[in-house]
Amino acid sequence: MNAFHDLHHAATPLVLPNAWDHASGAALAAAGFAAIGTTSLGVAAAHGLADGEGRTREPTIALARSLASLPCLLTVDLEAGFSDDPAEVAGLAATVAEAGAAGINLEDGRDNRALADPGRQSELIAAVKQRAPELFVNARTDTYWLGIDARPGPTLARLERYVAAGADGVFVPGVLSPGDLRAVAAGVPAPLNVLAVPGLPPLADLAALGVRRVSTGSLLFRAALHAAVEVAEAVRDGGQLPREVPGYAEIQRLSASPGS
Amino acid sequence: MNAFHDLHHAATPLVLPNAWDHASGAALAAAGFAAIGTTSLGVAAAHGLADGEGRTREPTIALARSLASLPCLLTVDLEAGFSDDPAEVAGLAATVAEAGAAGINLEDGRDNRALADPGRQSELIAAVKQRAPELFVNARTDTYWLGIDARPGPTLARLERYVAAGADGVFVPGVLSPGDLRAVAAGVPAPLNVLAVPGLPPLADLAALGVRRVSTGSLLFRAALHAAVEVAEAVRDGGQLPREVPGYAEIQRLSASPGS
Repeated sequence: MNAFHDLHHAATPLVLPNAWDHASGAALAAAGFAAIGTTSLGVAAAHGLADGEGRTREPTIALARSLASLPCLLTVDLEAGFSDDPAEVAGLAATVAEAGAAGINLEDGRDNRALADPGRQSELIAAVKQRAPELFVNARTDTYWLGIDARPGPTLARLERYVAAGADGVFVPGVLSPGDLRAVAAGVPAPLNVLAVPGLPPLADLAALGVRRVSTGSLLFRAALHAAVEVAEAVRDGGQLPREVPGYAEIQRLSASPGS
Repeated sequence: MNAFHDLHHAATPLVLPNAWDHASGAALAAAGFAAIGTTSLGVAAAHGLADGEGRTREPTIALARSLASLPCLLTVDLEAGFSDDPAEVAGLAATVAEAGAAGINLEDGRDNRALADPGRQSELIAAVKQRAPELFVNARTDTYWLGIDARPGPTLARLERYVAAGADGVFVPGVLSPGDLRAVAAGVPAPLNVLAVPGLPPLADLAALGVRRVSTGSLLFRAALHAAVEVAEAVRDGGQLPREVPGYAEIQRLSASPGS
């Protein structure tokens, strides 16, 4: 067990914010978050690439190397692994582990808005754990996210296989109702991660329901873009300019992180 | 004269927001801005590099290529040109022009917080205009920005030489007082660009003072980072999550810009 595992068994759920470039990661580390993740949507959009088409493999590795220099733990969103070949997915996981990542996300949603065969998905997870046993593998199922079998029963059936294959945690984005949250958390023998979206119960309620980790997905990235456009429109339309933004010196400090 | 030149002679000053990655540029284009710039601080920080150390040359070229695919005009912040050699700076300018940029910024501030010799700076500008005559060269002087000779007289002495060397516009970040704005705008035979910072007069007043272009520098980038951290803290501390952010589909549309 490493420090990242421990964060899933603390008194309150681990809040894991997701970065899309070095600056966003550095700003989150500077704000005191003990661990950060990455957002595949943000990484894809920042590079002008469509999400989920497999073209973000190299930018994802580059970002992992950059963020690994920050004074916080790191978990990397590897999407569906960018391959159906267990050896290739395990190799990618090993690459980000060698870069310094403490964990990865690996999802069973596929580009064609379908779910992977749970047996094949379990083979990917097992291959990763065999190649990089120290890596915290967060197995994501997209039952709720894609609206396919979006019920606790079929979700747990998948998650049980992923945990049996070696997953250290499980991630079910899109599950919102207290009843489903409680059922999934109680039914799976690994820490449950949910996605922060408007409508999700507050953190204290999530803790009581058994949730161990809350990640932000692309929410921060989308909020950042929104803020940028809003300020540009304020300049154009004579609105008030924000005064409470980081100054030049603070940005310079974030940029000049050791090893970056 | 091209369309980008024309925007400096419109009824109201050109408001030019500055992007740091593909997504921010795409979001600004989608918001209706006819032209966008880049922010060297944002590009440096997004890559985990210190600004002003010359290491952002390659990311700047890559960003220019990516943003040139957007349905808006583009001007690229080339900092001090990443070289003291006029031929090298002209070559870089030609590279971004070939990528599709309509303009560049070239500044006389140097890494050691000094100002370049105005004769040497004029040689850089002249070399760029000879190599890429169609490029709108915005000559930036850092007299006010660095607090060196921060008065209209010495500022105009530099700008006159830059315009004589071929500059199409001039940029004086840091000038704020109506008296100085009027004096600089009236004294230079090229459109004056100022930087949007809290404390700058509103757009209508700037127009009356003779300002022709207002750019946002790193303000949008800093506002974006601030918003990201604020939302992460809201998740952690039980605050309200923002509902007015772009959705997944909107981000996907931004990412999938033609040619990117």
